[in-house]
Amino acid sequence: MAVNAMLKTSAQTNDKWVYSFGKEICQGDATQKNLLGGKGANLAEMSKIGLPVPPGFILSTEVCTYFYQNKNAYPTEIEHQVDAGLKQVEKEIGASFGDVKKPLLLSVRSGARVSMPGMMDTILNIGLNDTTVKGLAASSNNERFAYDCYRRLIQMYSDVVLGVDHDLFEDILDTYKRRNGCRQDTDITAEGLKEISEQFKDLVKKETGKAFPQEPREQLWGAIGAVFKSWMTPRAVTYRKINAIPEEWGTAVCVQAVVFGNMGDDCGTGVAFTRNPSTGENMFYGEYLLNAQGEDVVAGIRTPLHLEDMQKTMPEVYKELNGIRLQLEKHYKDMQDIEFTIQNKKLYMLQTRTGKRTAAAALKIAVDMVNEKLITKEQAIKRINPQSLDQLLHPTIDAKAEKTVLAKGLPASPGAATGEISFDADDAEKLAKDGHKVILCRTETSPEDIHGMHAAEGILTSRGGMTSHAAVVARGMGKPCVSGAGDVMIDHKNKTMTVKGRTLKEGEKITIDGSTGEVLFGAVRMLQPALTGDFETLMQWADATRRLKVRANAETALDAETARKFGAEGIGLCRTEHMFFEPSRILHVRQMILAETQEERREALAKIEPHQRQDFVNLFKIMKGLPVTIRLLDPPLHEFLPQEEDEINSVAKSLSVSPDKVRQRIQRLHEANPMLGLRGSRLGIVYPEIYEMQVKAIFEAALAVKKETGETVTPEVMVPLIATKAEMDILKAMVDKVAAATGFKGYLTGTMIELPRAALAAGSIAETAEFFSFGTNDLTQTTFGISRDDAGSFLPAYQAQHILSADPFASIDTEGVGELVKIAAERGRKTRKELKLGICGEHGGDPASIKFFETTGLDYISCSPYRVPIARLAAAQASLKD
Amino acid sequence: MAVNAMLKTSAQTNDKWVYSFGKEICQGDATQKNLLGGKGANLAEMSKIGLPVPPGFILSTEVCTYFYQNKNAYPTEIEHQVDAGLKQVEKEIGASFGDVKKPLLLSVRSGARVSMPGMMDTILNIGLNDTTVKGLAASSNNERFAYDCYRRLIQMYSDVVLGVDHDLFEDILDTYKRRNGCRQDTDITAEGLKEISEQFKDLVKKETGKAFPQEPREQLWGAIGAVFKSWMTPRAVTYRKINAIPEEWGTAVCVQAVVFGNMGDDCGTGVAFTRNPSTGENMFYGEYLLNAQGEDVVAGIRTPLHLEDMQKTMPEVYKELNGIRLQLEKHYKDMQDIEFTIQNKKLYMLQTRTGKRTAAAALKIAVDMVNEKLITKEQAIKRINPQSLDQLLHPTIDAKAEKTVLAKGLPASPGAATGEISFDADDAEKLAKDGHKVILCRTETSPEDIHGMHAAEGILTSRGGMTSHAAVVARGMGKPCVSGAGDVMIDHKNKTMTVKGRTLKEGEKITIDGSTGEVLFGAVRMLQPALTGDFETLMQWADATRRLKVRANAETALDAETARKFGAEGIGLCRTEHMFFEPSRILHVRQMILAETQEERREALAKIEPHQRQDFVNLFKIMKGLPVTIRLLDPPLHEFLPQEEDEINSVAKSLSVSPDKVRQRIQRLHEANPMLGLRGSRLGIVYPEIYEMQVKAIFEAALAVKKETGETVTPEVMVPLIATKAEMDILKAMVDKVAAATGFKGYLTGTMIELPRAALAAGSIAETAEFFSFGTNDLTQTTFGISRDDAGSFLPAYQAQHILSADPFASIDTEGVGELVKIAAERGRKTRKELKLGICGEHGGDPASIKFFETTGLDYISCSPYRVPIARLAAAQASLKD
Repeated sequence: MAVNAMLKTSAQTNDKWVYSFGKEICQGDATQKNLLGGKGANLAEMSKIGLPVPPGFILSTEVCTYFYQNKNAYPTEIEHQVDAGLKQVEKEIGASFGDVKKPLLLSVRSGARVSMPGMMDTILNIGLNDTTVKGLAASSNNERFAYDCYRRLIQMYSDVVLGVDHDLFEDILDTYKRRNGCRQDTDITAEGLKEISEQFKDLVKKETGKAFPQEPREQLWGAIGAVFKSWMTPRAVTYRKINAIPEEWGTAVCVQAVVFGNMGDDCGTGVAFTRNPSTGENMFYGEYLLNAQGEDVVAGIRTPLHLEDMQKTMPEVYKELNGIRLQLEKHYKDMQDIEFTIQNKKLYMLQTRTGKRTAAAALKIAVDMVNEKLITKEQAIKRINPQSLDQLLHPTIDAKAEKTVLAKGLPASPGAATGEISFDADDAEKLAKDGHKVILCRTETSPEDIHGMHAAEGILTSRGGMTSHAAVVARGMGKPCVSGAGDVMIDHKNKTMTVKGRTLKEGEKITIDGSTGEVLFGAVRMLQPALTGDFETLMQWADATRRLKVRANAETALDAETARKFGAEGIGLCRTEHMFFEPSRILHVRQMILAETQEERREALAKIEPHQRQDFVNLFKIMKGLPVTIRLLDPPLHEFLPQEEDEINSVAKSLSVSPDKVRQRIQRLHEANPMLGLRGSRLGIVYPEIYEMQVKAIFEAALAVKKETGETVTPEVMVPLIATKAEMDILKAMVDKVAAATGFKGYLTGTMIELPRAALAAGSIAETAEFFSFGTNDLTQTTFGISRDDAGSFLPAYQAQHILSADPFASIDTEGVGELVKIAAERGRKTRKELKLGICGEHGGDPASIKFFETTGLDYISCSPYRVPIARLAAAQASLKD
Repeated sequence: MAVNAMLKTSAQTNDKWVYSFGKEICQGDATQKNLLGGKGANLAEMSKIGLPVPPGFILSTEVCTYFYQNKNAYPTEIEHQVDAGLKQVEKEIGASFGDVKKPLLLSVRSGARVSMPGMMDTILNIGLNDTTVKGLAASSNNERFAYDCYRRLIQMYSDVVLGVDHDLFEDILDTYKRRNGCRQDTDITAEGLKEISEQFKDLVKKETGKAFPQEPREQLWGAIGAVFKSWMTPRAVTYRKINAIPEEWGTAVCVQAVVFGNMGDDCGTGVAFTRNPSTGENMFYGEYLLNAQGEDVVAGIRTPLHLEDMQKTMPEVYKELNGIRLQLEKHYKDMQDIEFTIQNKKLYMLQTRTGKRTAAAALKIAVDMVNEKLITKEQAIKRINPQSLDQLLHPTIDAKAEKTVLAKGLPASPGAATGEISFDADDAEKLAKDGHKVILCRTETSPEDIHGMHAAEGILTSRGGMTSHAAVVARGMGKPCVSGAGDVMIDHKNKTMTVKGRTLKEGEKITIDGSTGEVLFGAVRMLQPALTGDFETLMQWADATRRLKVRANAETALDAETARKFGAEGIGLCRTEHMFFEPSRILHVRQMILAETQEERREALAKIEPHQRQDFVNLFKIMKGLPVTIRLLDPPLHEFLPQEEDEINSVAKSLSVSPDKVRQRIQRLHEANPMLGLRGSRLGIVYPEIYEMQVKAIFEAALAVKKETGETVTPEVMVPLIATKAEMDILKAMVDKVAAATGFKGYLTGTMIELPRAALAAGSIAETAEFFSFGTNDLTQTTFGISRDDAGSFLPAYQAQHILSADPFASIDTEGVGELVKIAAERGRKTRKELKLGICGEHGGDPASIKFFETTGLDYISCSPYRVPIARLAAAQASLKD
């Protein structure tokens, strides 16, 4: 005893290992999931509130812990406690375990804190043997039923506990059926099942060298041991690793009296949701089968009946069940997923748990439950998975539609779209102008494809990851995108693509599902998004709750309008380079880049300037006084360079030099690692005239809009890729000089923090910068030393080997990148108390990241327009205490 | 008075502005350089120890500060104090300022804490005017001398104080000489000089509208004001910015009685070093001119005499001077650079300062002075600039040799070399085999050129910076390299290069000077390095002093032997990829990379393995038990890919696939930013078989060497580019598994810290890693977001605009990169107290960086073999308190 006590961990503070539940004694409740497992805790809870639950008892998770700390041994006290639990069950049921006349049968189930595939599920009918089976036959007056129960026990038990191959039992069954002309299991007679049971027992003896255990208690302990051992099967270990479930949690074992839904037509079994899990409608929603066992409903052998029918067939039972439904909702304050069994018109509850639901249903249920005063607004906000809102903002493929899957890529940008295949951005634009709906299909996309992406309904690429150019731009545009569909081989020259041997031509119709990554043949039926009143209601509650402001990343008028529609409170990132690709200016941009002298460069810039000014005028008008953060030119210049022969020729002509000269200059601009090259503020230092033009366009646009509309315009000029205070000093001075020259007042000058050095030197940079916006995309790239464009070659292996729990470009890496954000925020604010802090990387739309940003005290997050509602909700959740 | 007092800064704690020096009164000493300027402090010091210094007084730097804080006004008390100082000078000299018979003449000089070009130098002969010049003529009995002094005063004073263009005076002189047939200034007679003085005065009146000031005190104050004003000339401001000299320092003004070396043949002037500044030999080393003024020696108008001659011409004076030499050395405990003047056989000291010297001289002087008990070993160690040792380790161009400079590039790797031009690595190798000396000339180099670089005497590139591939590899090899010589246009196809219109063919001889960046035509005479006993002695002292161990970065047997020769205490970085380029294995390496299956890859690796093992056997033998850190494969795989048609064909053949297939695979391996792509530990995760082969080769080699030599072998397996603990866990497990399989024990497994994330997560990584080696090259790249290969397009602009004070790839950026090193060291050691810490980036050979690394508590630094002595000395200096 003393030794046993010493071996116990601190968690095992008492000697209680077994917890009973039932009508008379109930030793647990729903709050004790850690101790009793999810299933057990809810069974105890239901018993406690008086629902008809077959009695049983639970061996707690502490037994599991003890079991593994003591070389698979049990605590000494446990046998006695199990006996006591069993006695209580016998008393309630009025039957005895192992009784030859009216035997009590037991089920043994595993039950961890969270539902966990890979562990043992259930062994039913424990307690049957050659003698008790006869008692069951007699007491049920149904010999066939009794022997069917027995052969099931032998089969399940031998497989799970004794390790006899499942298929060997199926072989015996099949042979019998073939020989006796039975088509289905139900065709087998009582005699047949008797014979099969004998054969099963012979098999067990042959395979294990021992007879099938006839002793009911031996069966029970064998099943209990099997549950505890299943906690450490390779499948379970792997599942825990993937889902970050600690091994120490352990599993509980739930032992419960078996009730039968298959003893006749006054029996049945069913599953139900307390509300419609698909729409959220407040109605009872479920199915049941008469004279059936639990698994038969799910297995789909017979077509189940709608729950409504029960009102006719068993009105009393239905009434009781519906009452339980209402009681459970009131009790759990959430929609429940329940299992029940009817044995001779008596209703038993076998399970209740929080029901899974669609995004639309989740919204409706949350809002309804607030109106029904079941939950508070805060609870409603917490209950919605922000990510799931995506389903509501985009068209989705009708789950009932027929579809032919051609290939599978990454679900890069949510929503579905149907269109004609186009392999070229220019073609796509032309087709779209002529009224065609187009899916742009490219090996990968580049900034030169932007106009084609804009024109297309959706984008498909055969290369690139979740954060490839195509994926990022598509998400920004709110367009569906499937990226990295490796089976799709695109032949851009011949304008065809081949998928697993099937060739598709330009103009053929396909459908892509950016939420699943599927590429489908032809047009597929879709459901259009409907932003219902519930959506609006919940968003208002979220807005009233959150501290973080939400802005959008937007350049075009369309983006800005979408952002406003979705509730953005400003623009957090206007990437001016996106404006440089428009056909009306790309030639001048190229002229500028390839200029040899500052004079030539200024000439080209002068031609771009009116366009830039107009861009900003449009944005300022739409944003009506809300802050607009404009990032000065950022990407490496060679992104804009001409590639095609005719582009080179036209640039050469405009510069009055030979095409060869242009080619030479292009060659000279080549960089080994453009991400780490001449870009961002470095452009502004080396070619100040570029930034001067941009800043002038911003301030002149602001003045023009102010004059026209009378409204304030609050531009925030953002210098990208600052590493040192000295860069910021030089460029801030330039901005102030241009502002003075134009006479504009009321702007801020700040920087993106997107380099580790900038984060570390934030204290000194904040002496000059008036705001920081964390560019967490680039900050992740440099902190990890991973280029998003190239990560596809190893990130899959990294995720498979659990090196990274999440893609660090999708969800912020709090250990590394996050620490830099924290450091920069603290040091920046130490220097300048009122420093405005925001984040404009992809992480601005990721709920887990938003939760982190809330803790760092940022002022706002900025994300693509289509993620604004997600960010609003996530920000509200982040501001609520756990 | 009260107002004046209030205006003073806190530095001005008293009302003393003027400090006298001379035989009778001496109000300063050498410690007061901040107050009196370098020159003034040393004059005071010499006076104090009784040396014959013409008396004078100093207006302190505080006057300068006051001057600028009070709109160019002086403190009220100063006039009185200057008067007093002047009176003291008159008293000691026995002549009066402005006296018509025996006038005292004064010199006015500027003197900041450190010598600073761009400021006013000297005005001599203040006190002369139309009247006193006659007195000087009479008292010196030398009219020509007196008028020469006068015309010099007018010329200097008018230029510096009154702003009259210097050339106008020269025009008058030239015109006079032409008309009067004078070839040299000395041909001009007394009458001529009188006439010229008159013309000079006319010029001043014409140019300034005022007569040349006749009042001696006006002259004096004019000169003093000119010195203070020269502190803020644009040239001085720029110089201070570049050299980080604070503006607040200010300059002092030194006013001193003029003595004349040009009054006859018992007069003279000279400069000398107390020891030979070129060799360090302990002998008096200097030159002098009889009957001459100070500047004549330097100007080189007449050939000066060796100091030895003075023993004959003026034995008494020589004896006195030599006594002073010994006294100064004993006093200053360092070699001095002195100026003296002899006026009528009387010796006057005009200046003493620490003498500049060559590296060899510095070594010899330091060692000798320790032996002479003048200084301690610690002082000797501190006195040598570690960088200067480079001069001793490489051949240098004879400073006296004639040379034709073709172009100038960056001094990328020190030393000089002559050879025949070769434009191709293969050609260079062949030529070298045939006994030719070759300079490899490339636009830029790549890892494929390594064998050619090895074969060449030196490397010249027309592109790339101080840290380009060519520069880094050349420094590692200890070969001279000039990089980024933009004027050199290489035509690789036609095997010619053009430099400013001059075309050079393959086989023509050039010389490169990697210490200056010069590219010279033909062969140029050189001096070979001689590592004297002094070098060894000093190194021993350094070794006994330093805490940091010094290792070398080395892969080849030659590197390792050089490293040992230079005193390396192990190998801190063996880059296994360098071994992959050898002709005997590159085909198999390519086979491996282009393999489609793990099996194909293993086949190729099996062919590389024996070579790798032999590489390690060689290294272990040479290093005789010293630790050898071996970095597993690091660079992006496509660096090894074939480019040329025939290379592609031979790989295709070896893989039994078509060349097109190979081309496709090459295309697939292309990365947008290889620096941030599939490299380092990512290779080991995605293709574990590569690292397994390498680790097996290491352990098998270690076992073989141990067996053969009986010596311990201590390999340290280093995993590159770790970002997370999980990567380290997986790869450490692999290393341990291979070790267990081979049966080898006694190794360490660690990682490079070269990503910001690794530095931040060092605490968790150290749970697995047994050592850290800071890869500060890559850490700088990611922390700054700057690719070394691409920095050339903006780093020059950055340095010109003072955004970066030093190239962060050459000297560690302590604010950013340095903080990460500190963080990682602290967090790593917190987890694992005995964690071994080293650094193996380029910074390991940079003294300033080594000083920083000493403060972070690293265990060792590792640098290229040729920098080992530099690192040993720098480490010793770093460990000494300032």
